[in-house]
Amino acid sequence: MSERSERTGPASAVSIDIREVGPRDGLQPEAPVPVAARVELVSTLVAAGVATIEVAAFVSPKAVPAMAGAGEVMAALGPAPDGVRYVALVPNAKGAELALAAGLSALTLTVSASEAYSQRNVRMSVEESLGQVAAVRAVVGPSVALDVVVSCAFGSPYEGEMAPGEVAALGARARSSGADALTYADTTGMATPRRVAELVAETGPAVGLHLHDTRGTALVNAYAAMSLGVRRFDTAVGGLGGSPFAAGAGGNLATEDLVHLCDDLGVATGISLEGVLAASAQVADLVGHVVPSRVAAAGPRSRLHPA
Amino acid sequence: MSERSERTGPASAVSIDIREVGPRDGLQPEAPVPVAARVELVSTLVAAGVATIEVAAFVSPKAVPAMAGAGEVMAALGPAPDGVRYVALVPNAKGAELALAAGLSALTLTVSASEAYSQRNVRMSVEESLGQVAAVRAVVGPSVALDVVVSCAFGSPYEGEMAPGEVAALGARARSSGADALTYADTTGMATPRRVAELVAETGPAVGLHLHDTRGTALVNAYAAMSLGVRRFDTAVGGLGGSPFAAGAGGNLATEDLVHLCDDLGVATGISLEGVLAASAQVADLVGHVVPSRVAAAGPRSRLHPA
Repeated sequence: MSERSERTGPASAVSIDIREVGPRDGLQPEAPVPVAARVELVSTLVAAGVATIEVAAFVSPKAVPAMAGAGEVMAALGPAPDGVRYVALVPNAKGAELALAAGLSALTLTVSASEAYSQRNVRMSVEESLGQVAAVRAVVGPSVALDVVVSCAFGSPYEGEMAPGEVAALGARARSSGADALTYADTTGMATPRRVAELVAETGPAVGLHLHDTRGTALVNAYAAMSLGVRRFDTAVGGLGGSPFAAGAGGNLATEDLVHLCDDLGVATGISLEGVLAASAQVADLVGHVVPSRVAAAGPRSRLHPA
Repeated sequence: MSERSERTGPASAVSIDIREVGPRDGLQPEAPVPVAARVELVSTLVAAGVATIEVAAFVSPKAVPAMAGAGEVMAALGPAPDGVRYVALVPNAKGAELALAAGLSALTLTVSASEAYSQRNVRMSVEESLGQVAAVRAVVGPSVALDVVVSCAFGSPYEGEMAPGEVAALGARARSSGADALTYADTTGMATPRRVAELVAETGPAVGLHLHDTRGTALVNAYAAMSLGVRRFDTAVGGLGGSPFAAGAGGNLATEDLVHLCDDLGVATGISLEGVLAASAQVADLVGHVVPSRVAAAGPRSRLHPA
């Protein structure tokens, strides 16, 4: 964190921490990309100043072909540079063991607030999924950082509204089961500023948010959350992503769109907008299609038209 | 306004006025659409509860082919239904005369904060353009509503930043030249919540905003503006639009995206989301391509997946 503070400078009254999930959530629904290219994308993100990157998922390659080769990714990456933290998604204790063996010391694990989504995403009930939190903690010991991502926290495409109090209670149970941080995910873009405020009123602002732009609300939700004191956000370069297990899911909040907003608001991210735009162009080449980010398409507001 | 209040109900603490500009700004950069189809689109918008609609532009059909036939549009529309107001864009006194002859009693006229954009858009200097405000007022007399839209109010793709004080001063000059309302336009998507706050600090909240989503910030800018007390917004069904004279311009804030947000925030718009989604599907058919609105693509958050 000291390096981060130096990078953002002493004039920054407010800063946020961005966890870049592009190499994992961003690439997950895409046609598989070679390990070497995924590693190169991580390098570009590091060069852009991204301090926390979800680089892999230790999941079944049959279930998520694009995430195959997590061990190879880690081996090719080598140890994280100073001031950078690599994170991997694990679905269970077995995945955690593999991640640990691959050298990771920060993990994410998803628990869904939606019973129906949980069944479709991990073929477990919510209760069984909570049991995995304890199982993973037992396997990894106390020194590994374990962030539980509560999916469908702002609504489920199957059950509809989620009561904020119940979602927060699920988060509290995940903490007492072994999570040392919580991130609430808007898996299918059902969050609104009002929903964000209602959930943060229950959880307090010391949580992360993982926002999807399915209905064009990711940026306004992040803005509303920042105004409530939330300081941790998941984003994906280019705005790629979306669960293959949720009908109608859209891409993640684009890293460049949040950095572009924060730069203008004077909220420090430690990330170079030009650097992340380079990563965005790279990931567009990798997936072979235009990325959803509007800033990637239009360029930053500071980029003028030659008169 | 009384009908509007009835429609939104007494429980609404806050409401906004949406001026739908889809039939004008939305269709302007598209391949020309027949008059009958434009009239039908207006009917669908009226049925959705839209109370103010910019239905035509009395401009040169050579310069803007999609806006040809403004007189025919007005003739086919006939008088506006009770509680509905039709508006037309005019570039000058001659356009205002034509609009008046076609039965309009509410006009918009653009004055640019950017000298370079003004030259490209209307081939006039900013000073000459201000002169048109007085000329139009002289032609239409005191009873016609004249809203001056200050374009490039949050930045110009040619000159960059616009000083909020200077932009507000230009608006004040437009008022003293004969405008009875002002709308500040983010013609090329350079606004941010900070820029909105800086301009509203100069103008006060009794202005309209016309936001474009070039950089994905239209909704967050509208949200920030509402929190500052701004209550008038231009939107275009489907999020279509963009100036043919501004490089990198993106579509307007989509009507359905703002209504979707306001519905959830408890901000009354008087507009039925399902109704505007019907208009959005209609306009997508008319232009022959997918519209930018995310809510149009994903459906409202209340539309669940069949389990």
